[in-house]
Formats: sequence, structure tokens, C-alpha cells
Amino acid sequence: MNILLILAQNKTSSFNHAIAARAAAALEELGHSVSVHDLYAEHFDPVLPIGEESLPEEELPQTIRDYLAEVRSSDGLIFVHPNWWGSPPAILRGWVERVFRQNSMYNFSPQGVVSYIGDKVVQIFSTSNTPREIEMNVYRDPIENFWKTILFGLLGCKSFERRNFEPIILSTPEERKKWLDEIEDTIKRRF
Amino acid sequence: MNILLILAQNKTSSFNHAIAARAAAALEELGHSVSVHDLYAEHFDPVLPIGEESLPEEELPQTIRDYLAEVRSSDGLIFVHPNWWGSPPAILRGWVERVFRQNSMYNFSPQGVVSYIGDKVVQIFSTSNTPREIEMNVYRDPIENFWKTILFGLLGCKSFERRNFEPIILSTPEERKKWLDEIEDTIKRRF
Repeated sequence: MNILLILAQNKTSSFNHAIAARAAAALEELGHSVSVHDLYAEHFDPVLPIGEESLPEEELPQTIRDYLAEVRSSDGLIFVHPNWWGSPPAILRGWVERVFRQNSMYNFSPQGVVSYIGDKVVQIFSTSNTPREIEMNVYRDPIENFWKTILFGLLGCKSFERRNFEPIILSTPEERKKWLDEIEDTIKRRF
Repeated sequence: MNILLILAQNKTSSFNHAIAARAAAALEELGHSVSVHDLYAEHFDPVLPIGEESLPEEELPQTIRDYLAEVRSSDGLIFVHPNWWGSPPAILRGWVERVFRQNSMYNFSPQGVVSYIGDKVVQIFSTSNTPREIEMNVYRDPIENFWKTILFGLLGCKSFERRNFEPIILSTPEERKKWLDEIEDTIKRRF
């Protein structure tokens, strides 16, 4: 399988980086081809430029054309990110805005939305510090809502799972080790 | 009153720009002082730099220090933006991530969240094309959730209103004229 893994976290020593490394290692162990993109490390620009949404693909910046090709040739997509105000960080939101573009990844027809990306295995690993009760009942699980319902619901990717690790800020080394083992198990089960 | 108005939309001839212009004109007519920031026009960088969240304010980039001062001295905040995947565009999410920073705008104490920004009149004008039924019942009104509950809920700003205009794509010039009149009325009622 071809797997595209996107990491978005500004703290370079973060648990998110450990998640991405462990997931990538497990995928390689399984013999899959994995492409890891650390959006911060590659200085991805999340600002959709004026007019970009109307450009034909051949006029897009090379970075975006490369990402379109990678998404299309992938069998699985993995996103790793913290919870910032109930959302992935802006750098990843902008990646979604620029890469999951109308005409390239989906379109509208009189019969409704047409997805061009086909079925893919989608896995989200997110981290947070908000107490779970508040995140679920007061904020109503906005990260799940964004990825599962709003984005991949519209794109028709039904093979979706998400695991949130929390609270990062109070976690012990033992807990984090167990979480990383769980990530490896998840990767081996799903890919 | 001092009002800070933030506009985030990459289409320069958009209805969002018309909203911002009408709101600003109405505020000036009322004798208020209004500071309008078009994040696209000023090339605001929404990527929270590595380590920025830990810097003392005097070491922050001047852009962020200026915004902190503007938010603090404001009596009202107005945000104007479209709905991109159930959220303000990345450029505005990143503005929130960099400006509504812990230690500057709020903090955590054993008694819970402490807001430093005081009460402000908050007004959101958003635009969208998603059918209302889907936005409310399937996506569960994510933009309202973000601004009202997650951000200004935590910051303790209770004087909150939001008006969403939709569907932009099918609206007639007459409808848009009526909407702009409504915006002027809203500004005159609230500020």
C-alpha cells in the first residue's frame, strides 16, 4: 500500500512527532511505502492564494501538484496533529483547503457531491489537553466532526478511524509508551 | 468605542469585502473608531512559529504585539469570513492561534480558566453555500461552535452574536443589498 502521512505540530520534540515516527516505522515493517510530510519542517504555506481555487491543475504551484499526485496514488491517509481551539492547527487546515480542492478531489453535480478520490483508509491520531468531558459534551468533539463528517464524509471515505490521546500535559512516560504501542497495533490492524 | 474588524477572504471582489466595508462605514457613522484588517491584503502569516507560544511578549514579532495591543484596547471585535470546511479560513484560524495566546489573553488556574480580555461585544458575519439543513443538522453548526462556545466561551465574552448569509452562490443582487442593509442595522443595534 501507498500511505501518505501528514504531521502538523510546531513543537519538534512533541508526542505528535513520536506518533508519526512510530506509525511510519510500523508501516515500513509491514512492507508498505510511506511518504511522511512534516508540514512545519517543509514550511508548507497554508494560505490559499488569491485565485488559486480557479486555476487549472497544470498552473498550480509544484508543491500542490505533488500533493494532488500523492493523495491520488495513496491507499491510505494518516494525519497526526494536536487540538488547537477544537481544530487541527492552521498549517494543516490550509493544507486541506489547498489540496482537497473542488474539481480536483470532488465536485458538485445535480445529483449531489461526486468524490474523485475513491475509497481510502483514513486514520487520525490527535492529541489534546482539554478534559474529555468538556471536549465531548460542551465542544461536541469538533475534531471528529471536521475529519469524519465534514471532510471525509463529503469525500465518501467510509473506512475512517480516529484516536485521540489526552491529556498530553499530564501523561507519564509509561502512558506515552503504552500509547505508542497502541499506535503500532492500530497501524498493523488497519494497513 | 474602539472596534477591531478582521476580514479573511481570498476573493477580493467577494461579498465578505462588501460586508466589511458596510460594517466599517456604519461604525464610522456612529462615531466609533474602527480598525479594519484584511488579513489577505496584509499578508498575515498564520503559521504559529516554532517556540512562539513560549516567548515573552516583548520578544514577539511586532505584528503580533500590535494585534495584542489592538485586542486589549478594543471594546468590540468583528470577524468577517466565509465557511471553508466548517471553519474560518486557515489565515484566520492562525490569527486566532497566534493572537489569542495563553498568558496574554487567558490562563489556567486551579479554579479554571482566567480570561484577561474582559467583556467585549463580539460580532461574526459569516457566509456559506452549504444547504442550511446540512450545516445545522449534519455538520452541527461548526462555525458557531468554534466562535461562540470554544473560543469566546472560554474567554468569557458573553455579548456574542453571529449572522450567517447563505447561499452566497445563488443569491441575487437584491438579496445581497438587503443583507447589507441588515448588517448596517445590526451594527447600529450592537455598537
